[in-house]
Amino acid sequence: MSRADDWVEAEFFRSALTREAGATSDLLSWLRRKNEEIAAQVEEIPLTELRKWRIDPHRGDITHESGRFFAIEGIRVETDWGKVPRWEQPIINQPEIGYLGILAKRLHGVMHFLMQAKIEPGNLNKVQLSPTLQATKSNYTQVHKGTRPRYLEYFNGEKPGRVLLDQLQSEQGARFLRKRNRNIIVEVSADEDVPISDDFRWMTLGQIKDLMRHDNVVNMDTRSVISGIPFGSHSTELLKYLSALSSGDQVNTHLMNSFLNGELHLNDFPGILSWLTELKCRYELQVKRIPLRSVSNWVNTGERIQHEHHRYFSVVGVRVSIRNREVVTWDQPMIKPAQEGLMAFIVKRINGIHHFLVQAKLESGNFDILELAPTVQCLTGNYRTGQNEYSVPFLGEVLQAPAERIWYSAMQSEEGGRFFEEQNRNMIVEVGNEFPVRVPANYCWMTLNQLHTFMMFNNYLNIAARSLIAAVSF
Amino acid sequence: MSRADDWVEAEFFRSALTREAGATSDLLSWLRRKNEEIAAQVEEIPLTELRKWRIDPHRGDITHESGRFFAIEGIRVETDWGKVPRWEQPIINQPEIGYLGILAKRLHGVMHFLMQAKIEPGNLNKVQLSPTLQATKSNYTQVHKGTRPRYLEYFNGEKPGRVLLDQLQSEQGARFLRKRNRNIIVEVSADEDVPISDDFRWMTLGQIKDLMRHDNVVNMDTRSVISGIPFGSHSTELLKYLSALSSGDQVNTHLMNSFLNGELHLNDFPGILSWLTELKCRYELQVKRIPLRSVSNWVNTGERIQHEHHRYFSVVGVRVSIRNREVVTWDQPMIKPAQEGLMAFIVKRINGIHHFLVQAKLESGNFDILELAPTVQCLTGNYRTGQNEYSVPFLGEVLQAPAERIWYSAMQSEEGGRFFEEQNRNMIVEVGNEFPVRVPANYCWMTLNQLHTFMMFNNYLNIAARSLIAAVSF
Repeated sequence: MSRADDWVEAEFFRSALTREAGATSDLLSWLRRKNEEIAAQVEEIPLTELRKWRIDPHRGDITHESGRFFAIEGIRVETDWGKVPRWEQPIINQPEIGYLGILAKRLHGVMHFLMQAKIEPGNLNKVQLSPTLQATKSNYTQVHKGTRPRYLEYFNGEKPGRVLLDQLQSEQGARFLRKRNRNIIVEVSADEDVPISDDFRWMTLGQIKDLMRHDNVVNMDTRSVISGIPFGSHSTELLKYLSALSSGDQVNTHLMNSFLNGELHLNDFPGILSWLTELKCRYELQVKRIPLRSVSNWVNTGERIQHEHHRYFSVVGVRVSIRNREVVTWDQPMIKPAQEGLMAFIVKRINGIHHFLVQAKLESGNFDILELAPTVQCLTGNYRTGQNEYSVPFLGEVLQAPAERIWYSAMQSEEGGRFFEEQNRNMIVEVGNEFPVRVPANYCWMTLNQLHTFMMFNNYLNIAARSLIAAVSF
Repeated sequence: MSRADDWVEAEFFRSALTREAGATSDLLSWLRRKNEEIAAQVEEIPLTELRKWRIDPHRGDITHESGRFFAIEGIRVETDWGKVPRWEQPIINQPEIGYLGILAKRLHGVMHFLMQAKIEPGNLNKVQLSPTLQATKSNYTQVHKGTRPRYLEYFNGEKPGRVLLDQLQSEQGARFLRKRNRNIIVEVSADEDVPISDDFRWMTLGQIKDLMRHDNVVNMDTRSVISGIPFGSHSTELLKYLSALSSGDQVNTHLMNSFLNGELHLNDFPGILSWLTELKCRYELQVKRIPLRSVSNWVNTGERIQHEHHRYFSVVGVRVSIRNREVVTWDQPMIKPAQEGLMAFIVKRINGIHHFLVQAKLESGNFDILELAPTVQCLTGNYRTGQNEYSVPFLGEVLQAPAERIWYSAMQSEEGGRFFEEQNRNMIVEVGNEFPVRVPANYCWMTLNQLHTFMMFNNYLNIAARSLIAAVSF
């Protein structure tokens, strides 16, 4: 089995290595300018005053009067995973599969991706770098005959294109009930004349990854799609690159090896599958939908719905007004975090290959009990003061890592259509010999090649893990 | 990524090729003798008379008074797949993951599997060939401290062993609500002294596959586990076997090529994944649990629950009495089919490789909307007279296949613990040049190698497809 044609993997890899001097600051200026051209007001209002949204008098569930978009409902969770055996919480129910599509095209022989400067009400920085197409299934299939999303014709088969990646991936399991998106990359021929407006720019994968080093610039949907891009399972391109590296590039050699389908991994793939099967059998997750108004330990203040101890998040109402050429306004409920979170991978060199320490993590909205998560993921827990329900393993190694061991550290936003100014610290930290190879039962060392193999199949890696993998660069 | 060590795949392959003269008839005599030693009475009784089972006065659901085992409930299904947009039906709800384990050991250098002659009340032939271990999660984890299942110590880590295969796989999606089993093969060292009673026999994979050519001898659980056994993704063993084949063995060459990870397949793997992602996005499946007594178009006669036109299946009560050394009796509800069904793969040689025509099929209890199914699967439809809700594609090609094109045809039982004398015709039929390569959108040609890759991940192939793949022999 190949994950993509070798040719395609080599093209992806070349694009990841291609950067032009000044490109990042040009793109940042463009995004800043797009931000200035748009006036956006996002104002918190009481849930009871949301226009076109309805609070069910019996259940308390919040739904749109059209029955479309999404709903805020309640769930009761019972599980033997972790230290909290039972809880209730509000959750977003959005059964439709969303489409996240990126158009690709070779310019001057290098694969470029068509990215959008897109405003979303919950975004810090308001305008962030987004995929070519973000559409609901109704948009995509044009069931409701609304405004046709731009570039739809390249994704629905109307215009010819070659599918390079096509995966169903999960969103935040602690906030969404089994929500999934179709992550898709379609390449058009190099002679195809794709008309683009000033909201769109072609860029290389290397440029996107560079932008990810800045806080809250690349949106979650983009990070999700590009995380699935595989490199060099048998790519001669990559091997050539490897052999050309000077000895000063040792770190890169170990990283490149992690992308290869080699024999030097710590755990073979059937062994990793057995590890995950065992855990999925060991733990149970029962999720029952309950009326939002009956969710224990949560209070509806009339203004908003919040945890009785102001923990986790609250459900707030917002009134959005965006003025570009015309003015668009709407109201909607959003999820507002109680504080920021941390998601971090610990990486260690084992057998000359960088291995990522992966956690099998249960979240209430997971499609299949457990998903592969970063080493540390405390989405909205109070990690700074340690005032959590339970201590978070490996937190110290991440927070106290010396600067030279930190591969990556940036604040990244959750999806700005549902989350109100939610940002989390994303980190990748390398540990040394002092860090043991032997890890607790819920953790497993994997190479990037192994993680990419899981990504081809649905619902294995959670969004936090994917967001971090998207940031890995050369 | 490798699906198993090359070494293991070669061992599996050698075991599949190993048969001894007379072995099949010896094993059949043994099973016949075990059958004669046991006196089993299975008598249909009214549901209202089931001892230790309870019919909920409000919902009508049938549950065991302990709250354990399984329940018969109702569901309402809404979908845009197929021609029936909405229906209601009874369904088995058994949320626990079952364990299906086979112990393996090398005897005289060849991998053997420890199989059990096991009686189950619903079985035609009563005693069928079963895995070493069939256990519920409670049995397995010994939560209820019941009788300890034999050989448990090899599967729960108490005794050392090497896990060769470990997969979560689905059961009948039209009868079970998201039921899954852990399919596991554990190899013990060749010097391990495993005590066996007369109910157990060591046999090669070739011998098990030979027994599958007989009607209702190898039970569904065995077929499920051995279907996951991969052969020769890069196996030098298999290549050696291939090159030794004489020209008279052409069919085998094309079949062997289908097991290899080659370049000659019609569809590459990323393309197949995209085909499936597209279909999972296109179709919706909404399943709502409803009280059994409110299920439309089904009647509770007091004796049994049946479809108003006597279609599909009925829920009946049975009283079981099994006398071996002692007498064991119990009552339980079972699913009794209205008539037999057909599950068949069409195989065609494309590029010198046998390709299987796979259907993406929606069934009400599916974990993830669609699973990969045989070309033809009409579980309990009236396929003989064509009196179905809809015509079944490719039915003619299967039913009118000339004898020399039929690779495999046998009646096989569904799981005898839940299904009352349910048997379905299992067939693999090869088609020739006249059969088009181009197929309808819900169908896709795949090699056995590609099917085995899907099998490593959960819930891709349905039990009907796996049952047929288990029958493929050399």
